Amino acid sequence: MDNERLNQQLAFSMECDKMKSIYRKTLLANRSRHETDAEHSWHIALMAMLLKEYAPAEADCDHTIRLCLVHDLVEIYAGDTFAYDAEGYQDKAERETNAADRLFAILPADQCKGFRAMWDEFEACKTPDAVFANCCDRLQPVLNNMATSGHTWRHHHVHRAQVEKRLLPIRDAMPALWPLCTSMLDEAVQSDWLVEN
Amino acid sequence: MDNERLNQQLAFSMECDKMKSIYRKTLLANRSRHETDAEHSWHIALMAMLLKEYAPAEADCDHTIRLCLVHDLVEIYAGDTFAYDAEGYQDKAERETNAADRLFAILPADQCKGFRAMWDEFEACKTPDAVFANCCDRLQPVLNNMATSGHTWRHHHVHRAQVEKRLLPIRDAMPALWPLCTSMLDEAVQSDWLVEN
Repeated sequence: MDNERLNQQLAFSMECDKMKSIYRKTLLANRSRHETDAEHSWHIALMAMLLKEYAPAEADCDHTIRLCLVHDLVEIYAGDTFAYDAEGYQDKAERETNAADRLFAILPADQCKGFRAMWDEFEACKTPDAVFANCCDRLQPVLNNMATSGHTWRHHHVHRAQVEKRLLPIRDAMPALWPLCTSMLDEAVQSDWLVEN
Repeated sequence: MDNERLNQQLAFSMECDKMKSIYRKTLLANRSRHETDAEHSWHIALMAMLLKEYAPAEADCDHTIRLCLVHDLVEIYAGDTFAYDAEGYQDKAERETNAADRLFAILPADQCKGFRAMWDEFEACKTPDAVFANCCDRLQPVLNNMATSGHTWRHHHVHRAQVEKRLLPIRDAMPALWPLCTSMLDEAVQSDWLVEN
């Protein structure tokens, strides 16, 4: 039994517990508090299971689920960057790359490489699986905003065009969901949850 | 586009948001609050990715991850039953079966069947994947208890033999982890976090 290896794996698992204390801008549907990164990651992995039939035919649902589970791990050190925070996005890539270097180094070398490859794949958003995972990542907060009378959008004065731009991977990769997306945005504008453009 | 089908899938996804408001007895490692079912489910799915090499050779890690993601969904209606609550366990099976009937019925028939089959598989704990998922489910709260000076164990006066009994699937199915388990329990007894038997 290689204790050093197991110790590294469990140390990484415990470091990942911090994902339960990284609060996103999104509210829970019942508005009781902000959602955590761990909860969000679980939710979009579940959505990948649910919505596979609308994904690109080449997408591998199991690998997509893995991408969903690890896609936000770097926020343990880099923090959550709000999707509509232009300033925060300026150094997001650098902060997150540094965080990835630090976090995945806790793992044994082979797993460090594997987890880093998954995170890189998600970030690059080029493979069908990364695109599918990104679509889930972008759809989930929209659904929670719709369930909370646009709480986060209203609080940050978000414009419809900003959300629509963020949802474009869905239009391109999961077009069957696009009418739903645009009808939600229409409703949000009509309800004054989003600023009309 | 079959809107009825998509509406059912999204209704289910939003119902699952309630997993973020079901609080377990386990504390987060930083002790800031109790862990939610959504966070726990994410964490054990991640642990399945990390600890595959110690699982039974026949276990399919991807399917195990799916079992981890859905294993506690019935608690949306049935609530969390503490592992060492003998009274709560008396009607746990009945409460959870009723909850499964109600929850999975939100889904289109084919997905209702698929999700129910996964939940039934986890509960029966007979397949290598279900056993592997159960091992992760049982190990994670022990690690969080060790990280929080046995918070939940102390609060509920849990005995070492109770935890050891709950960990037996690990001894049998992931024996490489057993020395770690017993040494954690030894330490917990020495630290007065668990009642010695």
